Amino acid sequence: MATSIPISLDAMGGDVGPEVVIPGAEIALVRHPDIRFLIYGEEARVRPLLEAYPRVRDASEFHHCDVSVAMDAKPSQALRQGRRRSSMWQAIEAVKGGNAAVAVSAGNTGALMAMSKFCLRTMANIDRPAIAAIWPTSRGESIVLDVGATIGADAQQLIDFAILGGAMARALFGIEKPSVGLLNIGVEEVKGLEDVRTAGRLLRDMSLPNLTYKGFVEGDDIGQGAVDVVVTEGFAGNIALKTAEGTAKQIGGYLREAMGRTLMSKIGYMFAKGAFGVLREKLDPNKVNGGVFLGLNGIVIKSHGGADAEGYAAAIDLAYDMVKNQLTDKISQDLVHYHRGGFGEAAANSKGDK
Amino acid sequence: MATSIPISLDAMGGDVGPEVVIPGAEIALVRHPDIRFLIYGEEARVRPLLEAYPRVRDASEFHHCDVSVAMDAKPSQALRQGRRRSSMWQAIEAVKGGNAAVAVSAGNTGALMAMSKFCLRTMANIDRPAIAAIWPTSRGESIVLDVGATIGADAQQLIDFAILGGAMARALFGIEKPSVGLLNIGVEEVKGLEDVRTAGRLLRDMSLPNLTYKGFVEGDDIGQGAVDVVVTEGFAGNIALKTAEGTAKQIGGYLREAMGRTLMSKIGYMFAKGAFGVLREKLDPNKVNGGVFLGLNGIVIKSHGGADAEGYAAAIDLAYDMVKNQLTDKISQDLVHYHRGGFGEAAANSKGDK
Repeated sequence: MATSIPISLDAMGGDVGPEVVIPGAEIALVRHPDIRFLIYGEEARVRPLLEAYPRVRDASEFHHCDVSVAMDAKPSQALRQGRRRSSMWQAIEAVKGGNAAVAVSAGNTGALMAMSKFCLRTMANIDRPAIAAIWPTSRGESIVLDVGATIGADAQQLIDFAILGGAMARALFGIEKPSVGLLNIGVEEVKGLEDVRTAGRLLRDMSLPNLTYKGFVEGDDIGQGAVDVVVTEGFAGNIALKTAEGTAKQIGGYLREAMGRTLMSKIGYMFAKGAFGVLREKLDPNKVNGGVFLGLNGIVIKSHGGADAEGYAAAIDLAYDMVKNQLTDKISQDLVHYHRGGFGEAAANSKGDK
Repeated sequence: MATSIPISLDAMGGDVGPEVVIPGAEIALVRHPDIRFLIYGEEARVRPLLEAYPRVRDASEFHHCDVSVAMDAKPSQALRQGRRRSSMWQAIEAVKGGNAAVAVSAGNTGALMAMSKFCLRTMANIDRPAIAAIWPTSRGESIVLDVGATIGADAQQLIDFAILGGAMARALFGIEKPSVGLLNIGVEEVKGLEDVRTAGRLLRDMSLPNLTYKGFVEGDDIGQGAVDVVVTEGFAGNIALKTAEGTAKQIGGYLREAMGRTLMSKIGYMFAKGAFGVLREKLDPNKVNGGVFLGLNGIVIKSHGGADAEGYAAAIDLAYDMVKNQLTDKISQDLVHYHRGGFGEAAANSKGDK
């Protein structure tokens, strides 16, 4: 018998909670029968759902937790009230203890990141964690990080993000040497933040074995899939991600309005329904759901709080892929390459020469 | 006879140059016969075009310039080679000297901003200029600034941008008290950059007479038209703008692909052609063309370098509107309100209490 993949779930996270998480687990389990779940949540709400989804019940261990972290809890508040006792914390701690290979939560991002940092700690030689998003592009998918774990990043941290994102691209896309770009404004070397320029110079000079540095990219290059991995600090990254989501929603609205405007356009819509279905699928945020917390001693996947069961299942699929494709090992390998090459010192020393 | 509106044009700016600028001027002139142009450029290229567009010729004064600023010139290089002598410089200087009420150029943004700053200088009590973009939203249009004039902004500069953008909204949209939001990640007060938080607190406390501060907005709120004016520093603002453009292009590509996929969808497209026309118009970057340089002693409008004659005409329309609606006076009024109220000192003092 093949080894199973143990995944811990915070059943209480998300706008809905267990009524999305358990059906989502069922969908993912059908696709990946070798998953075993460790489910954390309020017994009174989760147990009846497990009875309704016996496939999940039979493939999981359930643990009752008294506390659920509210979707609007501030990170500090969540830590104070939910440390050790909440379903969110317990799901993360299962990763720390080695019982789970990865944790999934649709709980609030700030609280989940604060607890993940507190419980798992950052990896040796990594200053700060990052949230990596999977961005649908004209050419397929790219990884964009950081999309909001921390604000600001110096050259060293941007290089760390490049390594973390590169390892994730190797795991997720199966590319041997993913292409990496630094998000900047203008592609000429003269523009942009000092830290971005320094990071660019260093990435070019050190030519890491497992990624290809492609230089600066701009906001409109992300959607064109110009590079496999887009690296930026968390403020701009979060704004880029949200802006793209908002623009997609806005254009979807225009399209609906245009198609309902006249009899002719309604007839046209009837004929082209299949094509619109394909389009809707391309734009469905549920299809690509899951932010990956990188740089910690363990992997945590953040599902969108508003995801439905299908969307939550996509986050579990992502968690499964990350374990199957040995993301953690790949990150460790890449960090060893980086630090053995003495590149870490070069980056650290660069702080003075801005 | 009504007074004419004098507008200076850098005929050599843009990917094409005078072959777009002069036909663009013709289109705008038909719409606004009270414009008078001051046109700067290479005589050998511009003269024949003026003969081909006699309406523009008759409404303009032409001045030959030896130097044209290259589209890929670095700002410092452009200043060194093009100061005083280039068509770009001359168009800006016409504003400084009072011969033109506003300048329009499709030349490269970095060079145009560097020359504008050098020639016009920032207004009293304004540290840094900003580039304001007009952003099409689900509800109409919003103003977003800064989209790339400078990188980073402290609380005082963000407040300056709020005042500049508010005045522009009053001029452009005719709203008495435009709503203003600060771009941030997460709407809770606890998150985000210190400077953004400080600016938010001050804007709330001082309740300026000519704008309504609405708090933080996120990337996806921009396209929904949540506020009339979105304030941010230039790095994140530029990335947001480019990302939205890239996403619109990407979805346009999906849509074309979907409509050409099957016979049924092609038939559907034939019926819905009119509706797609409306949609295309909504997404046409030519329709909303022109970044407004704010905070200088004079207004400069940057047209997109790749704009066609119709797009360039839109930038001239914008320039015309800004003069007609007395943008400069409105900015001055708002700055007087702000500084008379002693708010400037409050903001300056806040720098210590982050």
